[in-house]
Amino acid sequence: MHLTRTRVRYGETDQMGVVYHANYLVYFEIGRTELIRELGLPYSALEARGWKLVIVEASVRIRAPARYDDELVVGTKLTQVGRVRVRFEYRITLAGGSRTLAEGHTVLASIAADGRPRRMPREFHEALNGTLEEGQADERD
Amino acid sequence: MHLTRTRVRYGETDQMGVVYHANYLVYFEIGRTELIRELGLPYSALEARGWKLVIVEASVRIRAPARYDDELVVGTKLTQVGRVRVRFEYRITLAGGSRTLAEGHTVLASIAADGRPRRMPREFHEALNGTLEEGQADERD
Amino acid sequence: MHLTRTRVRYGETDQMGVVYHANYLVYFEIGRTELIRELGLPYSALEARGWKLVIVEASVRIRAPARYDDELVVGTKLTQVGRVRVRFEYRITLAGGSRTLAEGHTVLASIAADGRPRRMPREFHEALNGTLEEGQADERD
Amino acid sequence: MHLTRTRVRYGETDQMGVVYHANYLVYFEIGRTELIRELGLPYSALEARGWKLVIVEASVRIRAPARYDDELVVGTKLTQVGRVRVRFEYRITLAGGSRTLAEGHTVLASIAADGRPRRMPREFHEALNGTLEEGQADERD
Repeated sequence: MHLTRTRVRYGETDQMGVVYHANYLVYFEIGRTELIRELGLPYSALEARGWKLVIVEASVRIRAPARYDDELVVGTKLTQVGRVRVRFEYRITLAGGSRTLAEGHTVLASIAADGRPRRMPREFHEALNGTLEEGQADERD
Repeated sequence: MHLTRTRVRYGETDQMGVVYHANYLVYFEIGRTELIRELGLPYSALEARGWKLVIVEASVRIRAPARYDDELVVGTKLTQVGRVRVRFEYRITLAGGSRTLAEGHTVLASIAADGRPRRMPREFHEALNGTLEEGQADERD
Repeated sequence: MHLTRTRVRYGETDQMGVVYHANYLVYFEIGRTELIRELGLPYSALEARGWKLVIVEASVRIRAPARYDDELVVGTKLTQVGRVRVRFEYRITLAGGSRTLAEGHTVLASIAADGRPRRMPREFHEALNGTLEEGQADERD
Repeated sequence: MHLTRTRVRYGETDQMGVVYHANYLVYFEIGRTELIRELGLPYSALEARGWKLVIVEASVRIRAPARYDDELVVGTKLTQVGRVRVRFEYRITLAGGSRTLAEGHTVLASIAADGRPRRMPREFHEALNGTLEEGQADERD
């Protein structure tokens, strides 16, 4: 599981004094971005050729609230890599703690220049696929 | 299903030229807020007594992107009412259209003044419960 | 002054229990968008030709806090129309009240397809200009 | 000038492909928070005694757009320290660059437990004041 850190901003809280729930999806994105950066994947090359990865599904379960100025650890794992869709799973804890504050998933679909879902370029698929543990590759979609 | 309208703001788009995915949770909240307002529920009375309804679970599936300045219709339905947890389901379409752009759900838990999940006050539970169609009330949790 | 209404969302508050300050710029934008819509200006035509109006300057003074679920009235006024830059001023009050909660301004610049500031198309400039009271047109920039 | 870094998130862009203007106020806040953290100021102690620092004024000038995934350097300077109001100034550049992307200011007011502006506790005022260069302290307000 890839780990990255982020600190809760004031504007990310709401009047309950805790993180506003939609922001967990933003924290998931930070984890996903850093995982992809670390893989050295040619994502900009993908975009330069007109491809995009768009979110088609997202979920979050909030176990305990994160608060202003908390330093969070976002754990991100790629759990399914199809030719069109990839699935990431996430777990957020406090830095220095082990209790799960929030967990969830997203599914992203590759969209070609014509705006339609299409099998992503082979080399990008292979790079993602190589990060999976054996048995998780998914050629179905 | 309760219907309410909202218009996509510029800042709700991202550089893909469509609504940033986390904002669908914000649109769901608009629907939920307006549904509760219309029920005439004493939510402020609930808060005044130290109770809160916090989101413990949320999901969204995006079928087709919403865009800047689109007028959206948020359909909201209360689908489960326990003593502690309530579940809402949502469907977003374009005004004047019937195609589903996004759908999802949230589960909210009632939290007492001590910050812990507790059975919500009976009159609040009954008011929510009264909006369910027969057979959906859920006394399990 | 053009008036439009918007209601404070939960996620727009922060843990102080009031609207997070950056959101006043978002409310200003709602006012500006609705003013432009009402003028029937060919903004989409402008964008279709590759032009954009980008914010180069913004300010807000907060006199009294807006709170969750408040219905706000955003007053918007076009106060300067140059060939490149236009200036809007804003005043936010509570619906049914007269006290100023926040006020501010934005300056927008017209950007051509090459990404550089350029004099906006004449017909768009004239449409904006026509909304000014006499003596406010500004041909200097 | 205190320097801190932050990276532009996807959701902070808008459909123009650049950072949505209101987010510069969020970046300013990151700089302010880190400056205060570094001073070792007893801000939490201030809050524990019921005091808050609220934003009463903010401005931004955008010179050149920041883009997705840019690493930004937020320079923050405390430029006026009164007993009630403090003023911060900000300048944002690209990491490794010297060109100003955005600059601005905020004024914060100290609010006592009764919700009204009041002279902040002496020790907090003195700590802030000690960071000013000579001649900038401002005892007027």
